[in-house]
Amino acid sequence: MTGRVFVIGLGPGDPSLLTGEARAALDLCTDLFGYFPYIDRIPERAGVTRHASDNREELARAGTALALALTGKIVGIVSGGDPGVFAMASAVFEAIDTGPPEWRALDITVVPGISAMLAAAARLGAPLGHDFAVVSLSDNLKPWALVLSRIGAAATAGFALALYNPISRARPWQLGAALDHLRTILPGETPVVFATAVSRPDERLDILSLAEADSARADMRTLVLIGTAETRRIARREGRDWLYAPRAAAKVSA
Amino acid sequence: MTGRVFVIGLGPGDPSLLTGEARAALDLCTDLFGYFPYIDRIPERAGVTRHASDNREELARAGTALALALTGKIVGIVSGGDPGVFAMASAVFEAIDTGPPEWRALDITVVPGISAMLAAAARLGAPLGHDFAVVSLSDNLKPWALVLSRIGAAATAGFALALYNPISRARPWQLGAALDHLRTILPGETPVVFATAVSRPDERLDILSLAEADSARADMRTLVLIGTAETRRIARREGRDWLYAPRAAAKVSA
Repeated sequence: MTGRVFVIGLGPGDPSLLTGEARAALDLCTDLFGYFPYIDRIPERAGVTRHASDNREELARAGTALALALTGKIVGIVSGGDPGVFAMASAVFEAIDTGPPEWRALDITVVPGISAMLAAAARLGAPLGHDFAVVSLSDNLKPWALVLSRIGAAATAGFALALYNPISRARPWQLGAALDHLRTILPGETPVVFATAVSRPDERLDILSLAEADSARADMRTLVLIGTAETRRIARREGRDWLYAPRAAAKVSA
Repeated sequence: MTGRVFVIGLGPGDPSLLTGEARAALDLCTDLFGYFPYIDRIPERAGVTRHASDNREELARAGTALALALTGKIVGIVSGGDPGVFAMASAVFEAIDTGPPEWRALDITVVPGISAMLAAAARLGAPLGHDFAVVSLSDNLKPWALVLSRIGAAATAGFALALYNPISRARPWQLGAALDHLRTILPGETPVVFATAVSRPDERLDILSLAEADSARADMRTLVLIGTAETRRIARREGRDWLYAPRAAAKVSA
Protein backbone atom coordinates (compact mmCIF):
# COMPACT_ATOMS: atom_id res chain seq x y z
CA MET A 1 0.00 0.00 0.00
CA THR A 2 1.30 3.42 -0.96
CA GLY A 3 1.29 6.02 1.77
CA ARG A 4 1.56 9.75 1.70
CA VAL A 5 4.47 12.08 2.27
CA PHE A 6 4.22 15.71 3.37
CA VAL A 7 7.34 17.85 3.23
CA ILE A 8 6.30 20.59 5.61
CA GLY A 9 7.60 24.10 6.19
CA LEU A 10 7.30 25.12 9.84
CA GLY A 11 8.15 28.78 9.22
CA PRO A 12 10.75 30.70 11.19
CA GLY A 13 9.60 29.66 14.65
CA ASP A 14 6.57 31.53 15.96
CA PRO A 15 3.54 29.24 15.65
CA SER A 16 1.47 32.15 14.30
CA LEU A 17 3.63 32.03 11.15
CA LEU A 18 2.49 28.48 10.32
CA THR A 19 -0.01 28.20 7.47
CA GLY A 20 -3.33 26.41 7.78
CA GLU A 21 -2.11 23.84 5.25
CA ALA A 22 0.94 23.05 7.39
CA ARG A 23 -1.21 22.61 10.49
CA ALA A 24 -3.58 20.30 8.64
CA ALA A 25 -0.70 18.22 7.26
CA LEU A 26 0.89 17.86 10.71
CA ASP A 27 -2.46 16.64 12.05
CA LEU A 28 -2.61 13.87 9.42
CA CYS A 29 0.85 12.40 9.94
CA THR A 30 1.52 9.12 11.72
CA ASP A 31 5.29 9.68 11.63
CA LEU A 32 7.37 12.86 11.77
CA PHE A 33 10.96 13.15 10.57
CA GLY A 34 13.30 16.11 10.95
CA TYR A 35 16.26 17.80 12.55
CA PHE A 36 15.60 17.58 16.29
CA PRO A 37 15.09 21.33 17.05
CA TYR A 38 12.34 21.40 14.40
CA ILE A 39 10.70 18.23 15.70
CA ASP A 40 10.83 19.76 19.19
CA ARG A 41 8.69 22.68 17.98
CA ILE A 42 5.74 20.43 17.13
CA PRO A 43 3.28 19.70 19.95
CA GLU A 44 3.25 15.98 20.85
CA ARG A 45 0.16 14.03 19.84
CA ALA A 46 -0.88 10.49 20.75
CA GLY A 47 -0.24 7.90 18.06
CA VAL A 48 2.48 9.88 16.31
CA THR A 49 6.01 8.50 16.14
CA ARG A 50 8.71 11.15 16.15
CA HIS A 51 11.99 10.41 14.34
CA ALA A 52 14.34 13.26 15.25
CA SER A 53 17.83 13.21 13.78
CA ASP A 54 20.92 15.38 13.52
CA ASN A 55 21.47 17.82 10.70
CA ARG A 56 23.89 16.87 7.90
CA GLU A 57 21.86 13.63 7.62
CA GLU A 58 19.27 14.92 5.16
CA LEU A 59 19.63 12.25 2.48
CA ALA A 60 19.55 9.32 4.91
CA ARG A 61 16.57 10.86 6.73
CA ALA A 62 14.71 11.31 3.45
CA GLY A 63 15.35 7.68 2.43
CA THR A 64 14.16 6.30 5.76
CA ALA A 65 11.02 8.43 5.62
CA LEU A 66 10.20 7.44 2.02
CA ALA A 67 10.70 3.73 2.77
CA LEU A 68 8.32 4.04 5.72
CA ALA A 69 5.71 5.84 3.59
CA LEU A 70 5.77 2.88 1.21
CA THR A 71 4.51 0.66 4.05
CA GLY A 72 1.35 2.78 4.21
CA LYS A 73 2.30 5.32 6.87
CA ILE A 74 1.53 9.02 6.51
CA VAL A 75 4.92 10.60 6.83
CA GLY A 76 5.77 14.22 7.56
CA ILE A 77 9.27 15.50 6.89
CA VAL A 78 9.66 18.91 8.50
CA SER A 79 11.98 21.85 7.89
CA GLY A 80 12.23 25.24 9.54
CA GLY A 81 11.24 28.07 7.20
CA ASP A 82 10.31 26.83 3.74
CA PRO A 83 11.21 23.23 2.84
CA GLY A 84 12.21 24.27 -0.68
CA VAL A 85 14.90 26.80 0.34
CA PHE A 86 18.11 25.02 1.40
CA ALA A 87 16.06 22.46 3.27
CA MET A 88 14.52 19.00 3.08
CA ALA A 89 12.62 19.15 -0.23
CA SER A 90 15.80 18.89 -2.33
CA ALA A 91 17.02 15.94 -0.26
CA VAL A 92 13.66 14.16 -0.64
CA PHE A 93 13.62 14.47 -4.42
CA GLU A 94 17.31 13.61 -4.67
CA ALA A 95 16.58 10.43 -2.68
CA ILE A 96 13.72 9.59 -5.04
CA ASP A 97 15.84 10.30 -8.12
CA THR A 98 18.56 7.90 -6.98
CA GLY A 99 16.30 5.44 -5.11
CA PRO A 100 14.08 2.46 -6.03
CA PRO A 101 11.55 3.11 -8.83
CA GLU A 102 8.53 2.53 -6.57
CA TRP A 103 9.34 5.74 -4.68
CA ARG A 104 8.27 7.67 -7.80
CA ALA A 105 4.72 6.46 -7.29
CA LEU A 106 4.46 7.99 -3.80
CA ASP A 107 1.93 10.76 -3.22
CA ILE A 108 4.17 13.66 -2.18
CA THR A 109 2.96 17.11 -1.14
CA VAL A 110 5.41 19.92 -0.44
CA VAL A 111 3.78 22.36 1.98
CA PRO A 112 5.45 25.77 1.68
CA GLY A 113 6.41 27.82 4.72
CA ILE A 114 7.46 31.36 5.57
CA SER A 115 11.17 31.30 4.81
CA ALA A 116 13.70 32.96 7.11
CA MET A 117 14.47 35.62 4.50
CA LEU A 118 10.83 36.71 4.20
CA ALA A 119 10.38 36.77 7.98
CA ALA A 120 13.58 38.76 8.50
CA ALA A 121 12.75 41.20 5.71
CA ALA A 122 9.28 41.78 7.18
CA ARG A 123 10.78 42.75 10.56
CA LEU A 124 13.05 45.30 8.90
CA GLY A 125 10.72 46.96 6.39
CA ALA A 126 11.21 45.86 2.79
CA PRO A 127 14.94 45.25 2.18
CA LEU A 128 14.13 42.51 -0.39
CA GLY A 129 11.52 44.64 -2.15
CA HIS A 130 13.46 44.71 -5.41
CA ASP A 131 15.64 42.14 -7.25
CA PHE A 132 17.55 39.88 -4.86
CA ALA A 133 19.59 36.68 -4.81
CA VAL A 134 19.59 33.86 -2.29
CA VAL A 135 22.82 32.00 -1.59
CA SER A 136 23.90 29.33 0.87
CA LEU A 137 27.36 30.05 2.26
CA SER A 138 27.88 26.37 3.05
CA ASP A 139 30.78 24.84 1.18
CA ASN A 140 29.96 21.32 2.33
CA LEU A 141 28.53 20.45 -1.07
CA LYS A 142 29.93 23.13 -3.37
CA PRO A 143 33.41 24.61 -3.70
CA TRP A 144 34.06 27.84 -1.81
CA ALA A 145 35.26 29.51 -5.02
CA LEU A 146 31.78 28.98 -6.49
CA VAL A 147 30.14 30.59 -3.44
CA LEU A 148 32.40 33.63 -3.78
CA SER A 149 31.87 33.93 -7.52
CA ARG A 150 28.08 33.81 -7.07
CA ILE A 151 27.85 36.43 -4.33
CA GLY A 152 30.28 38.60 -6.30
CA ALA A 153 28.27 38.30 -9.50
CA ALA A 154 25.02 39.05 -7.70
CA ALA A 155 26.35 42.08 -5.82
CA THR A 156 27.98 43.46 -8.97
CA ALA A 157 24.69 43.13 -10.85
CA GLY A 158 22.83 45.10 -8.16
CA PHE A 159 21.00 42.28 -6.39
CA ALA A 160 20.37 42.45 -2.66
CA LEU A 161 21.51 39.21 -1.02
CA ALA A 162 20.01 36.80 1.48
CA LEU A 163 22.77 34.55 2.82
CA TYR A 164 21.72 31.24 4.37
CA ASN A 165 23.95 28.95 6.49
CA PRO A 166 26.41 31.78 7.18
CA ILE A 167 28.39 30.10 9.93
CA SER A 168 28.73 26.94 12.01
CA ARG A 169 31.33 25.27 14.19
CA ALA A 170 32.63 23.38 11.14
CA ARG A 171 32.55 26.52 8.92
CA PRO A 172 33.81 29.36 11.12
CA TRP A 173 35.60 31.61 8.57
CA GLN A 174 33.35 31.60 5.49
CA LEU A 175 31.08 34.51 6.49
CA GLY A 176 34.07 36.72 7.24
CA ALA A 177 35.61 35.86 3.88
CA ALA A 178 32.29 36.55 2.12
CA LEU A 179 31.99 39.98 3.80
CA ASP A 180 35.61 40.77 2.86
CA HIS A 181 34.85 39.86 -0.75
CA LEU A 182 31.70 42.02 -0.77
CA ARG A 183 33.69 44.97 0.64
CA THR A 184 35.73 44.93 -2.59
CA ILE A 185 32.51 45.38 -4.61
CA LEU A 186 29.97 47.39 -2.59
CA PRO A 187 30.28 50.75 -0.77
CA GLY A 188 31.24 50.49 2.90
CA GLU A 189 27.96 52.12 3.93
CA THR A 190 25.86 49.35 2.31
CA PRO A 191 23.45 48.09 4.99
CA VAL A 192 24.05 44.59 6.35
CA VAL A 193 21.61 42.88 8.70
CA PHE A 194 22.30 39.95 10.98
CA ALA A 195 18.85 38.53 11.69
CA THR A 196 19.04 35.85 14.37
CA ALA A 197 16.22 33.60 15.59
CA VAL A 198 13.59 35.73 13.86
CA SER A 199 10.11 35.50 15.45
CA ARG A 200 11.48 33.52 18.42
CA PRO A 201 11.79 34.84 21.98
CA ASP A 202 15.53 35.45 21.59
CA GLU A 203 15.20 37.27 18.24
CA ARG A 204 18.00 39.73 17.54
CA LEU A 205 18.26 42.11 14.60
CA ASP A 206 21.50 44.03 14.09
CA ILE A 207 21.57 46.67 11.34
CA LEU A 208 25.17 47.46 10.48
CA SER A 209 27.17 48.86 7.60
CA LEU A 210 29.20 46.55 5.40
CA ALA A 211 32.34 48.33 6.64
CA GLU A 212 31.63 47.47 10.28
CA ALA A 213 29.88 44.09 9.86
CA ASP A 214 31.66 41.48 11.98
CA SER A 215 30.94 37.81 11.41
CA ALA A 216 31.34 37.11 15.14
CA ARG A 217 27.78 38.41 15.63
CA ALA A 218 26.32 35.53 13.58
CA ASP A 219 25.49 32.02 14.67
CA MET A 220 23.72 29.01 13.14
CA ARG A 221 20.33 30.66 13.55
CA THR A 222 21.35 33.83 11.71
CA LEU A 223 20.23 34.93 8.27
CA VAL A 224 22.41 37.66 6.77
CA LEU A 225 20.88 40.28 4.47
CA ILE A 226 23.12 42.47 2.32
CA GLY A 227 21.61 45.59 0.81
CA THR A 228 22.60 47.39 -2.37
CA ALA A 229 23.84 50.88 -3.11
CA GLU A 230 20.16 51.80 -3.44
CA THR A 231 18.87 50.41 -0.13
CA ARG A 232 17.39 53.24 1.95
CA ARG A 233 17.40 53.51 5.74
CA ILE A 234 14.65 55.43 7.51
CA ALA A 235 15.86 56.82 10.82
CA ARG A 236 13.34 56.77 13.67
CA ARG A 237 13.30 58.48 17.02
CA GLU A 238 11.61 55.52 18.70
CA GLY A 239 11.85 51.94 17.54
CA ARG A 240 14.24 50.28 15.16
CA ASP A 241 15.14 52.02 11.89
CA TRP A 242 13.48 50.71 8.74
CA LEU A 243 15.27 49.48 5.61
CA TYR A 244 13.68 49.24 2.19
CA ALA A 245 14.53 48.74 -1.45
CA PRO A 246 13.01 51.52 -3.58
CA ARG A 247 10.72 50.27 -6.31
CA ALA A 248 12.63 52.21 -8.94
CA ALA A 249 16.23 51.35 -9.77
CA ALA A 250 18.41 54.45 -9.40
CA LYS A 251 19.84 53.92 -12.86
CA VAL A 252 16.44 54.69 -14.33
CA SER A 253 17.34 58.37 -14.29
CA ALA A 254 20.82 57.81 -15.71
CA MET B 1 -3.89 59.56 18.05
CA THR B 2 -1.53 57.18 16.30
CA GLY B 3 -3.09 54.11 14.77
CA ARG B 4 -1.65 50.89 13.56
CA VAL B 5 -0.69 49.69 10.10
CA PHE B 6 -0.46 46.06 9.01
CA VAL B 7 1.10 45.29 5.63
CA ILE B 8 -0.30 41.82 5.09
CA GLY B 9 0.69 38.98 2.78
CA LEU B 10 -2.33 37.00 1.62
CA GLY B 11 -0.27 34.18 0.06
CA PRO B 12 -0.82 32.87 -3.45
CA GLY B 13 -4.59 32.47 -3.24
CA ASP B 14 -5.76 29.37 -1.40
CA PRO B 15 -6.95 30.44 2.08
CA SER B 16 -5.13 27.44 3.61
CA LEU B 17 -1.85 29.15 2.69
CA LEU B 18 -2.61 32.14 4.93
CA THR B 19 -0.66 32.27 8.20
CA GLY B 20 -2.29 32.61 11.58
CA GLU B 21 -0.64 36.01 11.99
CA ALA B 22 -2.22 37.24 8.73
CA ARG B 23 -5.68 36.05 9.80
CA ALA B 24 -5.31 37.76 13.17
CA ALA B 25 -4.17 41.00 11.56
CA LEU B 26 -7.08 40.99 9.09
CA ASP B 27 -9.46 40.53 12.03
CA LEU B 28 -8.10 43.65 13.76
CA CYS B 29 -8.34 46.05 10.84
CA THR B 30 -10.98 48.75 10.53
CA ASP B 31 -9.88 49.62 6.98
CA LEU B 32 -8.42 47.48 4.21
CA PHE B 33 -6.46 48.82 1.25
CA GLY B 34 -5.25 46.91 -1.80
CA TYR B 35 -5.44 46.03 -5.44
CA PHE B 36 -9.07 44.99 -5.98
CA PRO B 37 -8.54 41.26 -6.78
CA TYR B 38 -6.70 40.91 -3.45
CA ILE B 39 -9.38 42.82 -1.52
CA ASP B 40 -11.97 40.56 -3.17
CA ARG B 41 -10.31 37.52 -1.60
CA ILE B 42 -10.96 38.71 1.94
CA PRO B 43 -14.31 37.73 3.47
CA GLU B 44 -16.46 40.80 4.21
CA ARG B 45 -16.90 41.71 7.85
CA ALA B 46 -19.22 44.26 9.47
CA GLY B 47 -17.56 47.54 10.44
CA VAL B 48 -14.67 47.19 7.99
CA THR B 49 -14.25 49.73 5.21
CA ARG B 50 -12.72 48.33 2.03
CA HIS B 51 -10.63 50.64 -0.16
CA ALA B 52 -9.93 48.70 -3.37
CA SER B 53 -7.85 50.37 -6.06
CA ASP B 54 -6.18 49.62 -9.36
CA ASN B 55 -2.63 48.37 -9.60
CA ARG B 56 0.10 50.83 -10.62
CA GLU B 57 -1.24 53.06 -7.82
CA GLU B 58 0.90 51.65 -5.06
CA LEU B 59 2.46 54.87 -3.79
CA ALA B 60 -0.82 56.83 -3.72
CA ARG B 61 -2.56 53.90 -2.01
CA ALA B 62 0.18 53.70 0.62
CA GLY B 63 -0.05 57.44 1.32
CA THR B 64 -3.83 57.38 1.71
CA ALA B 65 -3.62 54.39 4.04
CA LEU B 66 -0.88 55.94 6.20
CA ALA B 67 -2.76 59.23 6.49
CA LEU B 68 -5.87 57.33 7.63
CA ALA B 69 -3.86 55.36 10.20
CA LEU B 70 -2.73 58.66 11.70
CA THR B 71 -6.37 59.45 12.52
CA GLY B 72 -6.45 56.38 14.78
CA LYS B 73 -7.75 53.72 12.39
CA ILE B 74 -6.27 50.24 12.22
CA VAL B 75 -5.28 49.97 8.62
CA GLY B 76 -4.47 46.82 6.65
CA ILE B 77 -2.63 47.09 3.34
CA VAL B 78 -2.80 43.76 1.55
CA SER B 79 -0.70 42.10 -1.14
CA GLY B 80 -0.92 38.73 -2.81
CA GLY B 81 1.98 36.45 -1.91
CA ASP B 82 4.48 38.16 0.37
CA PRO B 83 4.21 41.95 0.82
CA GLY B 84 8.01 42.30 0.75
CA VAL B 85 8.56 40.72 -2.69
CA PHE B 86 7.67 43.18 -5.48
CA ALA B 87 4.60 44.24 -3.53
CA MET B 88 3.20 46.84 -1.14
CA ALA B 89 5.85 46.91 1.61
CA SER B 90 8.36 48.83 -0.55
CA ALA B 91 5.69 51.36 -1.52
CA VAL B 92 4.67 51.86 2.11
CA PHE B 93 8.22 52.58 3.29
CA GLU B 94 8.93 54.73 0.25
CA ALA B 95 5.84 56.78 1.11
CA ILE B 96 7.07 57.14 4.70
CA ASP B 97 10.59 58.07 3.57
CA THR B 98 9.26 60.88 1.38
CA GLY B 99 6.22 61.80 3.49
CA PRO B 100 5.51 63.92 6.58
CA PRO B 101 7.73 63.19 9.60
CA GLU B 102 4.80 62.04 11.78
CA TRP B 103 4.41 58.93 9.59
CA ARG B 104 7.71 57.66 11.05
CA ALA B 105 6.04 57.34 14.43
CA LEU B 106 3.35 54.95 13.13
CA ASP B 107 3.28 51.43 14.51
CA ILE B 108 3.85 49.35 11.37
CA THR B 109 3.87 45.54 11.21
CA VAL B 110 4.76 43.71 8.02
CA VAL B 111 3.08 40.30 8.08
CA PRO B 112 4.93 37.93 5.74
CA GLY B 113 3.09 35.61 3.35
CA ILE B 114 3.82 32.59 1.18
CA SER B 115 5.29 34.17 -1.94
CA ALA B 116 4.34 32.97 -5.42
CA MET B 117 7.82 31.55 -5.99
CA LEU B 118 7.70 29.38 -2.87
CA ALA B 119 4.19 28.16 -3.69
CA ALA B 120 5.13 27.36 -7.30
CA ALA B 121 8.35 25.62 -6.29
CA ALA B 122 6.46 23.48 -3.77
CA ARG B 123 4.07 22.26 -6.47
CA LEU B 124 6.97 21.20 -8.68
CA GLY B 125 9.34 19.58 -6.20
CA ALA B 126 12.33 21.68 -5.21
CA PRO B 127 13.48 23.71 -8.22
CA LEU B 128 14.65 26.56 -5.94
CA GLY B 129 16.46 24.19 -3.57
CA HIS B 130 19.85 25.69 -4.31
CA ASP B 131 21.09 29.24 -5.01
CA PHE B 132 18.52 31.32 -6.90
CA ALA B 133 17.79 34.91 -7.92
CA VAL B 134 14.49 36.76 -7.97
CA VAL B 135 13.89 39.40 -10.64
CA SER B 136 10.93 41.52 -11.71
CA LEU B 137 10.68 41.73 -15.50
CA SER B 138 8.75 44.99 -15.23
CA ASP B 139 10.55 47.89 -16.86
CA ASN B 140 8.06 50.45 -15.56
CA LEU B 141 10.54 51.62 -12.93
CA LYS B 142 13.88 50.35 -14.19
CA PRO B 143 15.46 50.33 -17.64
CA TRP B 144 15.05 47.17 -19.68
CA ALA B 145 18.82 46.96 -20.20
CA LEU B 146 19.21 46.58 -16.42
CA VAL B 147 16.66 43.75 -16.35
CA LEU B 148 18.54 41.90 -19.09
CA SER B 149 21.93 42.44 -17.48
CA ARG B 150 20.66 41.10 -14.14
CA ILE B 151 19.05 37.93 -15.52
CA GLY B 152 22.14 37.38 -17.68
CA ALA B 153 24.52 37.78 -14.74
CA ALA B 154 22.43 35.47 -12.55
CA ALA B 155 22.09 32.73 -15.19
CA THR B 156 25.81 32.93 -16.02
CA ALA B 157 26.68 32.54 -12.33
CA GLY B 158 24.53 29.40 -12.04
CA PHE B 159 21.52 30.80 -10.20
CA ALA B 160 18.06 29.44 -10.87
CA LEU B 161 15.66 32.32 -11.57
CA ALA B 162 12.21 33.27 -10.36
CA LEU B 163 10.78 35.91 -12.70
CA TYR B 164 7.96 38.11 -11.36
CA ASN B 165 5.72 40.37 -13.46
CA PRO B 166 6.61 38.54 -16.67
CA ILE B 167 3.95 40.02 -18.90
CA SER B 168 1.02 42.42 -19.04
CA ARG B 169 -1.00 44.27 -21.66
CA ALA B 170 1.40 47.21 -21.37
CA ARG B 171 4.50 44.98 -21.41
CA PRO B 172 3.80 42.29 -24.03
CA TRP B 173 7.30 41.59 -25.42
CA GLN B 174 9.60 41.61 -22.38
CA LEU B 175 9.23 37.94 -21.42
CA GLY B 176 10.00 36.80 -24.97
CA ALA B 177 13.07 39.02 -25.05
CA ALA B 178 14.20 37.70 -21.67
CA LEU B 179 13.83 34.08 -22.84
CA ASP B 180 15.75 34.90 -26.04
CA HIS B 181 18.55 36.39 -23.95
CA LEU B 182 18.65 33.36 -21.65
CA ARG B 183 18.85 31.06 -24.70
CA THR B 184 22.22 32.66 -25.51
CA ILE B 185 23.50 31.65 -22.04
CA LEU B 186 21.84 28.40 -20.93
CA PRO B 187 21.45 25.02 -22.69
CA GLY B 188 18.22 24.62 -24.68
CA GLU B 189 17.15 21.71 -22.45
CA THR B 190 17.19 23.88 -19.28
CA PRO B 191 13.78 23.46 -17.61
CA VAL B 192 11.43 26.44 -17.67
CA VAL B 193 8.16 26.49 -15.75
CA PHE B 194 5.19 28.76 -16.33
CA ALA B 195 3.28 28.60 -13.05
CA THR B 196 -0.07 30.35 -13.36
CA ALA B 197 -2.60 31.05 -10.60
CA VAL B 198 -0.83 28.66 -8.22
CA SER B 199 -3.12 27.22 -5.52
CA ARG B 200 -6.23 28.70 -7.18
CA PRO B 201 -8.94 26.66 -8.96
CA ASP B 202 -7.53 27.54 -12.39
CA GLU B 203 -3.91 26.69 -11.50
CA ARG B 204 -1.79 25.67 -14.48
CA LEU B 205 1.79 24.42 -14.40
CA ASP B 206 3.64 23.98 -17.70
CA ILE B 207 7.08 22.36 -17.56
CA LEU B 208 8.93 23.18 -20.78
CA SER B 209 12.47 23.38 -22.05
CA LEU B 210 14.10 26.76 -22.58
CA ALA B 211 14.30 25.95 -26.30
CA GLU B 212 10.52 25.51 -26.58
CA ALA B 213 9.32 28.03 -23.97
CA ASP B 214 6.85 30.43 -25.58
CA SER B 215 5.90 33.62 -23.76
CA ALA B 216 2.36 33.40 -25.14
CA ARG B 217 1.59 30.85 -22.38
CA ALA B 218 2.12 33.44 -19.64
CA ASP B 219 -0.30 36.01 -18.30
CA MET B 220 -0.36 38.48 -15.41
CA ARG B 221 -0.90 35.67 -12.89
CA THR B 222 2.14 33.69 -14.08
CA LEU B 223 5.41 33.22 -12.24
CA VAL B 224 8.22 31.96 -14.47
CA LEU B 225 10.91 29.68 -13.04
CA ILE B 226 14.13 29.08 -14.97
CA GLY B 227 16.30 26.14 -13.94
CA THR B 228 20.03 25.73 -14.30
CA ALA B 229 22.22 23.25 -16.13
CA GLU B 230 22.05 21.20 -12.91
CA THR B 231 18.26 21.11 -12.43
CA ARG B 232 17.07 17.50 -12.49
CA ARG B 233 13.72 16.26 -13.80
CA ILE B 234 12.20 13.07 -12.37
CA ALA B 235 9.95 11.37 -14.91
CA ARG B 236 6.79 9.75 -13.53
CA ARG B 237 4.36 7.33 -15.03
CA GLU B 238 1.40 8.92 -13.24
CA GLY B 239 1.23 12.53 -12.13
CA ARG B 240 3.32 15.51 -13.10
CA ASP B 241 7.10 15.14 -13.33
CA TRP B 242 9.13 16.56 -10.45
CA LEU B 243 11.93 19.13 -10.75
CA TYR B 244 14.62 19.68 -8.15
CA ALA B 245 17.93 21.41 -7.63
CA PRO B 246 20.52 18.95 -6.30
CA ARG B 247 22.06 19.99 -2.99
CA ALA B 248 25.57 19.62 -4.42
CA ALA B 249 26.79 21.89 -7.19
CA ALA B 250 28.06 19.83 -10.12
CA LYS B 251 31.33 21.73 -10.18
CA VAL B 252 32.20 20.22 -6.83
CA SER B 253 33.67 17.25 -8.69
CA ALA B 254 35.48 19.37 -11.28
